[in-house]
Amino acid sequence: MALIVQKYGGTSVGTLDRIRNVAARMKRTRDAGNEVVAVVSAMSGVTDGLIKMARDLAENPCEREMDVLLATGEQQSIALVTIALQDAGVDAVSITGRQAGIQTTGSHTRGRILNLDPSLMRGFLNEGKTLVVAGFQGVTPDGMIHTLGRGGSDLTAIAVAAALKADVCQILTDVDGVYTCDPRVVKNARKLPEISYDEMLEMASSGSKVMQSRSVEFAKKFGVVFEVRSSLNDNPGTLVLEEHPNMENVVIRGVSIERSQARLTVTGIPDEPGMSGLILGALAAAEINLDMILSNIAHDGFARHSFTMHSSDLGKAQAALKPLLADLPHSKIETEAGIAKLSAVGIGMRSHSGVAATMFKALGNAGINIGMISTSEIKIAVTVDETRIEDAARAVHDAFGLDKAPA
Amino acid sequence: MALIVQKYGGTSVGTLDRIRNVAARMKRTRDAGNEVVAVVSAMSGVTDGLIKMARDLAENPCEREMDVLLATGEQQSIALVTIALQDAGVDAVSITGRQAGIQTTGSHTRGRILNLDPSLMRGFLNEGKTLVVAGFQGVTPDGMIHTLGRGGSDLTAIAVAAALKADVCQILTDVDGVYTCDPRVVKNARKLPEISYDEMLEMASSGSKVMQSRSVEFAKKFGVVFEVRSSLNDNPGTLVLEEHPNMENVVIRGVSIERSQARLTVTGIPDEPGMSGLILGALAAAEINLDMILSNIAHDGFARHSFTMHSSDLGKAQAALKPLLADLPHSKIETEAGIAKLSAVGIGMRSHSGVAATMFKALGNAGINIGMISTSEIKIAVTVDETRIEDAARAVHDAFGLDKAPA
Repeated sequence: MALIVQKYGGTSVGTLDRIRNVAARMKRTRDAGNEVVAVVSAMSGVTDGLIKMARDLAENPCEREMDVLLATGEQQSIALVTIALQDAGVDAVSITGRQAGIQTTGSHTRGRILNLDPSLMRGFLNEGKTLVVAGFQGVTPDGMIHTLGRGGSDLTAIAVAAALKADVCQILTDVDGVYTCDPRVVKNARKLPEISYDEMLEMASSGSKVMQSRSVEFAKKFGVVFEVRSSLNDNPGTLVLEEHPNMENVVIRGVSIERSQARLTVTGIPDEPGMSGLILGALAAAEINLDMILSNIAHDGFARHSFTMHSSDLGKAQAALKPLLADLPHSKIETEAGIAKLSAVGIGMRSHSGVAATMFKALGNAGINIGMISTSEIKIAVTVDETRIEDAARAVHDAFGLDKAPA
Repeated sequence: MALIVQKYGGTSVGTLDRIRNVAARMKRTRDAGNEVVAVVSAMSGVTDGLIKMARDLAENPCEREMDVLLATGEQQSIALVTIALQDAGVDAVSITGRQAGIQTTGSHTRGRILNLDPSLMRGFLNEGKTLVVAGFQGVTPDGMIHTLGRGGSDLTAIAVAAALKADVCQILTDVDGVYTCDPRVVKNARKLPEISYDEMLEMASSGSKVMQSRSVEFAKKFGVVFEVRSSLNDNPGTLVLEEHPNMENVVIRGVSIERSQARLTVTGIPDEPGMSGLILGALAAAEINLDMILSNIAHDGFARHSFTMHSSDLGKAQAALKPLLADLPHSKIETEAGIAKLSAVGIGMRSHSGVAATMFKALGNAGINIGMISTSEIKIAVTVDETRIEDAARAVHDAFGLDKAPA
């Protein structure tokens, strides 16, 4: 008998009919002889409706109260899914975040999981019950309701799987698994049977928004193997796990793209200690999420810094730097929106040379100019003009033969 | 500085505008130099919507899960009211039933308050905060969410007032107070400045549904003086408290009516020990709430039992008795629907004789036949034909001069 944790997102429980489908799927898993623990999100639309009411009452509603308000969405879902399970003849019980023993820290609406005491869940499992756990929520050490922010239900599922030492953790979602590239862009993209945590992290930070990075990091930290699969069919999905010798032996696991990027370059900065810190500090204070960061010394002897970010942050970034640059007579800001980022990701890169060469050659052959370049141990990322990003993805995907399973 | 507990029902927080009104009223109370603790219900309609979803999923949804589901209604209200208060510049904080330290016992959806540990609330009050407490809910000793059933928010308010030793407990509702009779029936009915717990209990059990009996019983037990008043204006309402020498010196405090009653009479029952127990046991097993119960021996030597109940229970009651009576060859069932009950209530009755005579004479003069009669130490109740109940109420109200304040 295996213990299976299944996570269902807001779309999967978005209507009463879908809740019945979730119950039916859980029952099948149960009837196949497994212990089942579901982690569920709020019904899609519920959270947005609550946020709308709060914003109608106050421009910036207090985050402690937003947690109290939004945690009700998942609490409703767990009760409804449990009722549907019971109606299908499954002995089930709902578990709030607090009852799941999820203790959190950090600021309200952006909690981090500090600890998880599974004793109540364990007790119910020992009684033969199927559990339905509220995702996205926990309590602070002093008993206040706390939500986990975006992707919080995935995080709950991984944490519950770790604490209960589950055999399998399934993230059931509206995609079939992790693909070598977005199938809407690259028609012959292939679903991956496996991907390593590190690759998944690089894919997540490069625009493949199957899961938030912190859930993957948490899984890696606690060694939770999880599977991303569809809640609409029974196809096997993609296993995410620590790299192992029997993994498909490829150089590049996948290609991900991220649109709506922008570049900001400041030139004419005196090459003195502390200047980069001032610039990055001003951008951080304005809560700009920087992606690529490049610095060098230009031929005029001044430093030059380039950053990429989401294009919606470009105006805010430019404004944040203005007061600082006012004191630097040679400084200039140059911006470029309408760019996109393409990343090739794979642990095989560590042992193979020539990956960048293959990639740049493929882009060159397709007539695509490369802007900025950044690399990690297992990733090469480039910016290109946004109008060419799909061509770029197809060219790189082809160049590495990602449509075919390796021998 | 007084500590004032205010209870707002579902209608009072039924829209965002009404929530703003509640916040404004609380702010006024606060600005007048008081500590304020509000107990709020779910926004009207929310609870019904949740029940509808649950019933769509299962005919008889599990009561434990209904508690988990329905408790979200009040949790949403406390967050929204708190956000509105903060927007109005009041330093406020929401408190769930669990955080209010409300420990409960009894079956799910019908919890009773076992204990209330106000230490968290006391701490927030000491910090100068205004509190918004979720009505209708608590937790069982083993940490499961528990709701208190109908009128549960009133009960929460009384319990919070008792635990915090509040100076005043205001039950803010859509009526102005407790009247000598329903003003829709008796035009010159008078709002009472005060009423004793015992009278309020008899009024509640006789159809004046301002509050559930158990909230009044709880207030009496813990000596909580409370005031029933309107949430729509600032008129003083009715104080409910232990009787005292300076209360208005009247024989009858008020008259209440209850419509849609029915009578069931069984005749031809052998006059043997245990027979009444069998009959009452069968009706209790069918969960029939009996009101009046009359038994006597008829001239034929057989026993005769009459009961009144809500007319919607009549069919169920008759069916419940059928198997029992099948073994009693002389037994017969006789039913009468379309009756109503009129009760005259007053602690003055204890020291005044002739109350029944005045009441029966008034009804006789109005040409109204009396059916069954029952009495308690401070109440006389009669059944009359439902078509005559309003005439009956006016006749009795006039006979005791209830429209005029006593000298």
